[in-house]
Amino acid sequence: MSGRPEGPDPRAKIPADSPFSLANLPYGVFATAGEDPRLGVAIGDHVLDLAATARRGLLRDTGLPDHVFSQPSLTALLASGRPRWEALRARIAELLSPGPEAIADVAELLLPSGEVTPRLPFAPGDYVDFYSSLEHATNLGKIFRPGSDPLPAAWRHLPIGYHGRAGSVVAGGTPIRRPWGQIAPREGSSSPTFAPTDALDIEVELAFVTGNGPAHGEPISVTDAADFIFGFVLMNDWSARDIQRWEYQPLGPFLGKSFATSISPWVVPLQALKPFLVDGPVQDPPPLPHLRCDRPWNLDLDLEVELRPEAPAAAATIARVNARGLYWNAAQQLAHASSNGAAVRAGDLFASGTISGSGRDEAGSLIELTWGGARPLELPDGSIRRFLADGDEVVIRGSCGPGLGFGEVSGRITPAIDRGFIESTQ
Amino acid sequence: MSGRPEGPDPRAKIPADSPFSLANLPYGVFATAGEDPRLGVAIGDHVLDLAATARRGLLRDTGLPDHVFSQPSLTALLASGRPRWEALRARIAELLSPGPEAIADVAELLLPSGEVTPRLPFAPGDYVDFYSSLEHATNLGKIFRPGSDPLPAAWRHLPIGYHGRAGSVVAGGTPIRRPWGQIAPREGSSSPTFAPTDALDIEVELAFVTGNGPAHGEPISVTDAADFIFGFVLMNDWSARDIQRWEYQPLGPFLGKSFATSISPWVVPLQALKPFLVDGPVQDPPPLPHLRCDRPWNLDLDLEVELRPEAPAAAATIARVNARGLYWNAAQQLAHASSNGAAVRAGDLFASGTISGSGRDEAGSLIELTWGGARPLELPDGSIRRFLADGDEVVIRGSCGPGLGFGEVSGRITPAIDRGFIESTQ
Repeated sequence: MSGRPEGPDPRAKIPADSPFSLANLPYGVFATAGEDPRLGVAIGDHVLDLAATARRGLLRDTGLPDHVFSQPSLTALLASGRPRWEALRARIAELLSPGPEAIADVAELLLPSGEVTPRLPFAPGDYVDFYSSLEHATNLGKIFRPGSDPLPAAWRHLPIGYHGRAGSVVAGGTPIRRPWGQIAPREGSSSPTFAPTDALDIEVELAFVTGNGPAHGEPISVTDAADFIFGFVLMNDWSARDIQRWEYQPLGPFLGKSFATSISPWVVPLQALKPFLVDGPVQDPPPLPHLRCDRPWNLDLDLEVELRPEAPAAAATIARVNARGLYWNAAQQLAHASSNGAAVRAGDLFASGTISGSGRDEAGSLIELTWGGARPLELPDGSIRRFLADGDEVVIRGSCGPGLGFGEVSGRITPAIDRGFIESTQ
Repeated sequence: MSGRPEGPDPRAKIPADSPFSLANLPYGVFATAGEDPRLGVAIGDHVLDLAATARRGLLRDTGLPDHVFSQPSLTALLASGRPRWEALRARIAELLSPGPEAIADVAELLLPSGEVTPRLPFAPGDYVDFYSSLEHATNLGKIFRPGSDPLPAAWRHLPIGYHGRAGSVVAGGTPIRRPWGQIAPREGSSSPTFAPTDALDIEVELAFVTGNGPAHGEPISVTDAADFIFGFVLMNDWSARDIQRWEYQPLGPFLGKSFATSISPWVVPLQALKPFLVDGPVQDPPPLPHLRCDRPWNLDLDLEVELRPEAPAAAATIARVNARGLYWNAAQQLAHASSNGAAVRAGDLFASGTISGSGRDEAGSLIELTWGGARPLELPDGSIRRFLADGDEVVIRGSCGPGLGFGEVSGRITPAIDRGFIESTQ
C-alpha cells in the first residue's frame, strides 16, 4: 500500500458492450472465497470493493461510517438517505474516473467479476407487486375471467397491487424449485389435487427499492417520490398459474407466487437512470390529484427474455418488450402505496407487475405468450413449451442503452421435491 | 449483589386476576427510562428483566448467549429454535418458583409493570393473514358479494390467505391514524373520491410467530408445525372497508389494510397454551392429506372487544367470541403456507383472520356486528356507531382461563392528517 504505482485507467477496463459503464455504477453485495460478503459497485468486468475502499479512508467525505460498506446487505446504505446516496455516488465516480482525483492504485480495489459471487443485495422488508401494465392486466383478465370485463373497475383510477412474500426473494442465479400446490378439481371431480405445478411461468418486471420513508402514518407525494427511491432491479416473479387460479379469490395471489421471486443482483441507482426517464402513456381518465404525475417517470428500458432449455439447440429469445409503456409509473406506485400512511422502510421493494406490450412477442409471461397454453411456443429444436419444463433456465436482460444496463436476472428450474415422506408422516 | 437477602416469593406477587401466572410466562420487549429496550417476561404485575438476569449468569445453562436478551427484538430468540425455547422457559420457571432453585434476590430483577413500556416484540418478517373463520368468510361474502355464493370454491379445501404489510405492524397501545384512501364513485358519478375512510373497522384475530423454518424450498408438515411455532399474540387488523371494497379485485386487500395492524406486546409461548388446545370443527370435505390434522390444534380462547369512545359513559363490550371455532388451525395454516416451499423465517407472523361465531354478538368486526352499517350499534350513552369515530379506543382482551391470558391489544383512533399541503404540491 506504500508508494503510488501508476494505476490502470479504469475506463480502459470497461468493455464497450458492458452494461456497467462509469455512467451506471450499480450497487450490490458480493462474496469472495474466504471473505465475508460486503458492498461493491459493478464497473465493466470488475467490482469495486467498497469495504476495502472505505478501509483505505477513501469514502470518509461521504459522511457514511465504514461499517456500512462491510455489511452483507445494502440496507444501511439505503437507510442513510438521498443526500448520502448522492455524495457516495459522486465520490465513487471521482475515484474511478481518470484525472487528478483518481486513486492511482485503484487496481487493488477492483476485483475481476469472475472471482466474486453476487448475493441478494438486500433482504426486502415488504415486497409489493403492482399490476401496472394495461396490456398485461387486459390479457390476464381475458384468460382468467373470460366473458367479463378484463379490467377491474378501479384499474384506471389507481395502481392495483398486493403484497408478495419478501422472504422468498432470491438473487438472480438461484435455482428455482418447482413448487407443489393445490389445483382445482378436474372436470367431473369435486376434489382438488395436490401436485407439482404443471403451469410454471415467469413474470418480467422492473422493481425499485426505497430508503426510509417519512414517519408511519405520513404519505409520500408523487413529487417527493424521487427522494425515497434508491434504485431499480430486474425481477422475475415466478408464478404457478394452476395454483394461482384455484386460490386467488377473494384475497389475491398467495402460494401461486410466494415460492420464489428473483431479482437482479446489481441495483441501478435512480440517478443513473434519469436520462432515460420518459413520459408514459396518456392516462384517461386523469388520475385524482394525489396520483397525478406531470414529470417523465417511465423508464425507457428494453427487456428481453431468453429461454435456455437443457438442450442448447432449443435456446431462444421468446419475448422482447420495453418498460416505457407501463400505465402507472414508480412515483405513482409509491405515492399510492403510502397514501394511507403505510410505513415505508429502507429495503422495501416495489415491483411493476408483468410488463407486456401490444405486439405478438411483447409479453412478459408465458401464459400470455401461449395464450393460456392454447398457442404453445415452438423452440428452435422443434420442442414446444406451454409453461416451463424442469431444467429450463430463464434469463431476463434489460438495457437502457450502451453502458447503461441492468445485467440479467436468471434462474433454472429444478424438479419438485419428493413429498412421499412428508405425506406418510401425516 | 453480595449476600443473599431473603427474597419475596414471586408467586405472592401475582394477583389472582392477572393473566400472567407462572404457567404463562409470555415474552416481550420493554424499555425503561434511560435504558435500552431489552427482553422480558411478564409475571403478575411485574416484568422479569432477562438482560439483567443473563448478566447475573443465571441463563447460562440455556445455551443462549447473553446478547440475545439485550436486543430490542425477540428475533434472535426466535431464531434459536425449539430446544433452546424449551430450555429457557424451564429455567425461567425454575428461577421464579419458590424452592431451592429460586433466586433469593429475584426482586432485583423484577420491575413493576407500571415502570416499563412494552414495545413491539419483534419486527415481523413476512406477515400472512388467513381467512379461517367459516362464519366470518360467510358474513363478508354476503356483505361484499351479495347474490353470489359467499364462500369461494376453494375455501373448504385450503386456508385462504394473503400477505399483509409487515412494516405497518405496531405494538398494542400505538395510536392509529385514520387513513386516507380512494373510494368508489358514488351513485351517478364516474369518478372515485380520495378522502379519509368513512368505514374504519377492526378485525379480532389470533396470530402466531415462527422460528426459522427448513431450507427455502422445503415444506413444513402439519405434524412438524409445533417445532416452528414459538407462540401467539392477539391482533387487531384495522381495516378501511370503503377503501378495501374499491381496490380488492383481483389481487386482494391492499391499502384497506396496510396502514396499521396492532399486536399484543406479550407473546404467549405455545408450551403455555398446550392445555388449552382442543379439537376444531369437523372439516367436511376432509382436507387433502397434506392438510389433515388429527391432533387438537384449536385454541380455547375467550375474546372480548371493548369500545371506549372519548365519552366514558359510552364504553361498552361490543363482541365476545371464542377462537376454538376457527375452521382452519395454526398447524394447517403453516403447513399450507409452506406447502410450496416458501421461505419461513424467525419472526414471520401468521394471523387467523377475523374470528367470528354464529351468535348475535359473536363477530370480530364492526362490518359484521352492524351488517355493513345497516344495524348500527347503540352505545350505553345513546350514541351510535356504524364504524369507528375519531377518539374511539378499541381494546381486545383474550384469556384461556385464570392466570393464562394474553392481556390486551388496544389502539385509539386519531384524526386523519391534513393533506392540503401535499395536494397543493402536485
